[in-house]
Amino acid sequence: MDIFEKKGLKKKSESLSGWYADVVQKAEIAEYGPVRGTMVIRPYGYAIWERFQQIFNRMIEEDGVSNAYFPLFIPYSLIAKEKDHVEGFSPELALVTKAGGEDLEDPLVIRPTSETIMYEMYSKWINSWRDLPIKINQWNNVVRWEKRTLMFLRTSEFLWQEGHCAHTTLKESKEMVLRALDWYRQVYEDYYAIPVILGIKSESEKFAGADATYSIEVLMPGGKALQGATSHDLGQNFSKVQNISFQDKDGKTQFVWQNSWGLTTRSLGALFMVHGDDGGLVMPPKVAPIKVTIIPIFGKSDEAVLKYCRKIKKVLDESNSEFPGKVIIMDDMEKTYGRRVNESEIKGIPLKITVGTKEVENSVVTMDCRLRIIKKVVSHLKEISEKAEKVLSEMQLEMYKKAKTFLDENTHEAKDYEEFKNIMKTKKGFIKAYWCGSKECEVKIKEETKATTRVKVENERSVVGKCIYCSKETSDVWYFAQAY
Amino acid sequence: MDIFEKKGLKKKSESLSGWYADVVQKAEIAEYGPVRGTMVIRPYGYAIWERFQQIFNRMIEEDGVSNAYFPLFIPYSLIAKEKDHVEGFSPELALVTKAGGEDLEDPLVIRPTSETIMYEMYSKWINSWRDLPIKINQWNNVVRWEKRTLMFLRTSEFLWQEGHCAHTTLKESKEMVLRALDWYRQVYEDYYAIPVILGIKSESEKFAGADATYSIEVLMPGGKALQGATSHDLGQNFSKVQNISFQDKDGKTQFVWQNSWGLTTRSLGALFMVHGDDGGLVMPPKVAPIKVTIIPIFGKSDEAVLKYCRKIKKVLDESNSEFPGKVIIMDDMEKTYGRRVNESEIKGIPLKITVGTKEVENSVVTMDCRLRIIKKVVSHLKEISEKAEKVLSEMQLEMYKKAKTFLDENTHEAKDYEEFKNIMKTKKGFIKAYWCGSKECEVKIKEETKATTRVKVENERSVVGKCIYCSKETSDVWYFAQAY
Repeated sequence: MDIFEKKGLKKKSESLSGWYADVVQKAEIAEYGPVRGTMVIRPYGYAIWERFQQIFNRMIEEDGVSNAYFPLFIPYSLIAKEKDHVEGFSPELALVTKAGGEDLEDPLVIRPTSETIMYEMYSKWINSWRDLPIKINQWNNVVRWEKRTLMFLRTSEFLWQEGHCAHTTLKESKEMVLRALDWYRQVYEDYYAIPVILGIKSESEKFAGADATYSIEVLMPGGKALQGATSHDLGQNFSKVQNISFQDKDGKTQFVWQNSWGLTTRSLGALFMVHGDDGGLVMPPKVAPIKVTIIPIFGKSDEAVLKYCRKIKKVLDESNSEFPGKVIIMDDMEKTYGRRVNESEIKGIPLKITVGTKEVENSVVTMDCRLRIIKKVVSHLKEISEKAEKVLSEMQLEMYKKAKTFLDENTHEAKDYEEFKNIMKTKKGFIKAYWCGSKECEVKIKEETKATTRVKVENERSVVGKCIYCSKETSDVWYFAQAY
Repeated sequence: MDIFEKKGLKKKSESLSGWYADVVQKAEIAEYGPVRGTMVIRPYGYAIWERFQQIFNRMIEEDGVSNAYFPLFIPYSLIAKEKDHVEGFSPELALVTKAGGEDLEDPLVIRPTSETIMYEMYSKWINSWRDLPIKINQWNNVVRWEKRTLMFLRTSEFLWQEGHCAHTTLKESKEMVLRALDWYRQVYEDYYAIPVILGIKSESEKFAGADATYSIEVLMPGGKALQGATSHDLGQNFSKVQNISFQDKDGKTQFVWQNSWGLTTRSLGALFMVHGDDGGLVMPPKVAPIKVTIIPIFGKSDEAVLKYCRKIKKVLDESNSEFPGKVIIMDDMEKTYGRRVNESEIKGIPLKITVGTKEVENSVVTMDCRLRIIKKVVSHLKEISEKAEKVLSEMQLEMYKKAKTFLDENTHEAKDYEEFKNIMKTKKGFIKAYWCGSKECEVKIKEETKATTRVKVENERSVVGKCIYCSKETSDVWYFAQAY
């Protein structure tokens, strides 16, 4: 069956999970690998990840963070040093027990995250305050064995960046934690066109080994929340057990203050789910691997049409653009016009330019925007770059606005627990509610409504209210939602 | 101990391995990880790898090769499909036998290379000649459990790119094999400033599962050869066992023709060893992460000196340069002048600009080239970019020439086996000699002289001579050398 001729996508509004599985496969984004929970990221999907790498490398480089590479294998005895850390990750570890034809004495853990292995080296590299701060980022693959997996959102192996810094003071480390969080906010809001909620996580939801975890939360269609990226204040938890100390300016020995922060390929899952529609993906222009597709209509004067297509491409390629995606011509005559249009639509390519004999004769260009609310634009050839740039900018903005409206419309306040339960049953989305901070209430709420605490609401007037569950007085308001 | 104050490097000429271990560590390139045979690549070392990625991505993109990502885990049953392949890799495999707290039924192989897992997907993606060629590259980590390891040159985990193509015809596939080989030649010769020998490998030295392997060979100091990159003609060996077939234009079912090609982080080991000298590394300007270091001499007028340093940096940063490395100012007053000079030298930074009050007063700039045969250049500030560019170009060229002279001087011809043995005992290097092609002779030569066949000499007049070992007549001349 020709998948593009007959798209055969499930409707997003009718079956979100069915639509998602279809669209990821049919847009040639990714497929499951032969080992359960592993994923093959195909060129079109991987190009989006490469775009994120480019954006993020620029952000961290400006801040003096360097890229490096640390080993995949962590001795089990090393990862076991920080107790909370090993406890938190134990159920998800993959272990190498045989190598080179022999049984290993100390099994090797495949990194689920690199704190322990990186800090083992940091302890060798750091002696004096002059060696600090150390700010290193890694691009790599990590493994966390998951029981239930879902393309991009939860896979046994995933790609990510993990930044790891060591500082002389807690203040400096905390500033770094929030700076990283703000980079993630920028990635989501300014590039992925996805508005986020951000803040500190509850004690039970924080990273194993951290003093505090900050998170970026995305509201997904269907009303569940996705943890989009995290930044951890590690305090001195690792430096004390791994002995990462330095002589300060007064000659006294101190332990370093650390933080770590990461964003994974799961972010691409958010991108696809938030923006896609019944026709397929919708790619935000700033991260779209292909920004424009030019589709010739074959007929009487193919050569003239193709020549004109190449002319359009040349003009667009040579113009200064804010959008680095490619301009392609879909000129495969083996494929029908309809199939090529479908292919462009399902892949979410922001702009589609259709070229027939009429366009050639009149030296005009017709641009269709993948975001349906933006109208068709007809332009003279010489104005095409300017017009395309304008439509792409508008599209980026409108995609953000649309997602923001969805977020706002699905962020509720609950005055009492009955209302809370009712919202979680009928509408889902975020609920802002008072919570006393006790683990008991958090557990009960989750058991009874499936809602988990997401992040604490910051910068609100500290009015005292009552915990949504136990009615104890508190001034802390939290975002709750069901989790992906 | 301050490693830069007292360099404490072993002399390259006296102890190559001692010098290499020292320089890799002291230039902050890399260190061994806690698991035997694993390696931490530090920011300065990793930046060179990133530079290679940039260069190579440009080459393959022009040819229509796309990047993608395939899983780390290969089911053992899958890798076992191609018999030669699994036999070749079996002794080096690392196996995951436990995951998520449970014993796995089918152990997972950590990819030593990705043929089998990638082609499993190719068999799903390829149906018709319209789906071909498929040209995909991966940047990832692979694991081959090594008994004896050596920083960069032989590590249990290493980074590489692996390109994997599928074509409709053998001819097209063979062209791709040679195109990839030529990319590698360009990387070594035009960027790493290392001349190479290239050609086909013998039957016993070829890749497990290939019909033929082509290789780039580098002559290392000490006279041993390093296999610098390989390109494999896989024929239909994998497509037949993994059933990767397509309908051709006539409607007939055929198996695809495949090739794979890779270059690893071991190439950096060649870079360091070939060019380094007793003072430390010498970085070829085209791949140097830092191309210029500006070193202020602190004294009476620090502010004026620093201001002038920043001026020089600004001029260099703003000029159009062929060399993308950074310009840095080593202005850490905590470090003595001598230490900063040593640091610059051991890291092999191509150009060093020293700034004292004299330079400030006369608006001149003094540039020292890390390659000692190039003389000091004094320039007016306004001509600095042009002059720096000239010295860097000259340095790149001279480094290549120097390495080429070494290669030529250490490439011998042996007329009889006595001479062959004598060269391998006293001088090492490459020996060009007739070889009949029989495995028996190859094994004996290796046993008796440690020399292995490297590649066959191409494009020579096909004069008939006698096999260096058995005296059988043959027209095939091969390069022999001891292997790293």
